[in-house]
Amino acid sequence: MGHRRFEVTTLGTGAALPARGRYPTSQLVNVNGSLYLIDCGEGTQQRLRSVGANFMRIGHVFISHLHGDHYLGLMGLISSMHLMGRTIELHVHGPADLKPIIDLQLRSSQTYLRYPLEFHALEPVSGRSAWTDDRVEVSLLALRHRLPCTGFVFTEKRTQRLLRKEKLYLIPQFMRDRVKHGEDLELPDGTVHPNRDLTTDPPEPRRYAYCSDTAYAPELIDHIRGVDLLYHEATFTERLARRAKETMHSTASQAAMLAHDADVGQLLLGHFSSRYKNTDELLAEASAIFSRTSVSEDGHTYPVIARSIL
Amino acid sequence: MGHRRFEVTTLGTGAALPARGRYPTSQLVNVNGSLYLIDCGEGTQQRLRSVGANFMRIGHVFISHLHGDHYLGLMGLISSMHLMGRTIELHVHGPADLKPIIDLQLRSSQTYLRYPLEFHALEPVSGRSAWTDDRVEVSLLALRHRLPCTGFVFTEKRTQRLLRKEKLYLIPQFMRDRVKHGEDLELPDGTVHPNRDLTTDPPEPRRYAYCSDTAYAPELIDHIRGVDLLYHEATFTERLARRAKETMHSTASQAAMLAHDADVGQLLLGHFSSRYKNTDELLAEASAIFSRTSVSEDGHTYPVIARSIL
Repeated sequence: MGHRRFEVTTLGTGAALPARGRYPTSQLVNVNGSLYLIDCGEGTQQRLRSVGANFMRIGHVFISHLHGDHYLGLMGLISSMHLMGRTIELHVHGPADLKPIIDLQLRSSQTYLRYPLEFHALEPVSGRSAWTDDRVEVSLLALRHRLPCTGFVFTEKRTQRLLRKEKLYLIPQFMRDRVKHGEDLELPDGTVHPNRDLTTDPPEPRRYAYCSDTAYAPELIDHIRGVDLLYHEATFTERLARRAKETMHSTASQAAMLAHDADVGQLLLGHFSSRYKNTDELLAEASAIFSRTSVSEDGHTYPVIARSIL
Repeated sequence: MGHRRFEVTTLGTGAALPARGRYPTSQLVNVNGSLYLIDCGEGTQQRLRSVGANFMRIGHVFISHLHGDHYLGLMGLISSMHLMGRTIELHVHGPADLKPIIDLQLRSSQTYLRYPLEFHALEPVSGRSAWTDDRVEVSLLALRHRLPCTGFVFTEKRTQRLLRKEKLYLIPQFMRDRVKHGEDLELPDGTVHPNRDLTTDPPEPRRYAYCSDTAYAPELIDHIRGVDLLYHEATFTERLARRAKETMHSTASQAAMLAHDADVGQLLLGHFSSRYKNTDELLAEASAIFSRTSVSEDGHTYPVIARSIL
């Protein structure tokens, strides 16, 4: 299937120290037209403009943790939404400590938002559901980092059952929605067609998992098993495994081991240390362990492709 | 003279809402090699990189007020200086409310800076001296804005007296510094040469004034009279004079009136509303009142040229 849009645009793929051409972390997740932002490093609003995203349509922002490269662009985004006349609610999901940071800055600038900002405090508990709407369910991952840090799993909502083309002639137009929802078809003359004769199963919901920032965390495997796309940080190569451990980041190999052990569809690496002029070494290291690996580039969009058709 | 460097790089010349090609406000002032930053909108650290500035050499940051487009880049800059191993002190001058904003964010990210950050609370009182070192004196301007807002006048330190070339042969090498400092020359044989015969007056110290954000504020005239370069905000044209008044910003005409009445050397306009696709109308409006006007562009550098040689 996959005709429903589900894609991730990596707005920034750098680590804490910005490097030329790599911005700090932010991702735009588009699920069938609904926009969700994950992390919001400094300059994210400019990055959103540069990829042509209408950021007034972003309904939710998920902040993984309070290191500056993951949230310092949030106040600017909140402020620009206000100046552009937003009236619809914005949901911000993040560590409890983020709320006083937002409130203090709104107060100090005497900004009275014209739209409701609903804050949801996140505790990093793997498997806990954080948000559900008609497009998606977002659940959490407890990452291993120097600060409390949360990963996210986006699962698209299961679609309605698919009508068998060859049986369409049997189903009156006004009954189709009910059949798609799984009801049997009872015709005026009393004939009953069981739903299973008229429909096929919809595709499995696709899943996208976001793991940044984190040390190697094999306890995540059960929670990300079989996801279609895994974004995992790969700040360093194995040559700097010790530095990775100290700073609680991952190497490209560790990201790939996790992808392999969780049997994911594809692995997308990111959060590259500014010391790497290009990503060849990081990609080579991960690909040796897990072949369906790619490296994220700033401003590129990656579709979440059903693992079953890869 | 003017062989000593004194120049202003406008890193961002946009207003609150970023527009393509115009970043929020920040300026780098270079006085004979010492770097001072005025305001620090979101993305300033990237802008500093893009103009090739070594921002570890910035010793002072002056924040005019707490609207986001003037300070939201500060935490990122402070954090990057830390990550890059800075050890020398950074002075931050700004509204008292800025300090808790910095402290809260450092605390929430568990960042313990490796360099001393000295905070200086500013009260906007025109004429008050805020900082003096061997290159420059910085004094304040009370601007008119919706929040307490401070402008800045940078006055370069007066140089030593200039030795008259035709008298150089008279002055032994080891006496030259003392003569430059104004002493008379007494030779071993008892001859005395009065200082005025050996030297000429150094050039008048140049002055640069920064006025953003502010409504038209004629009470500033006495404090900026005769400055060599005046940067003044010109958010709107006269067509939007009412909007300027409501939001406590200036029109290009008002900036030019102030420049005219204060008899400044040159006027540099900035802080343009994102509604202006180009600055032609703003420049035309101001130039009709004050001819020595130019419009600032992002990333351009403007030397402070002594008014006397214009």
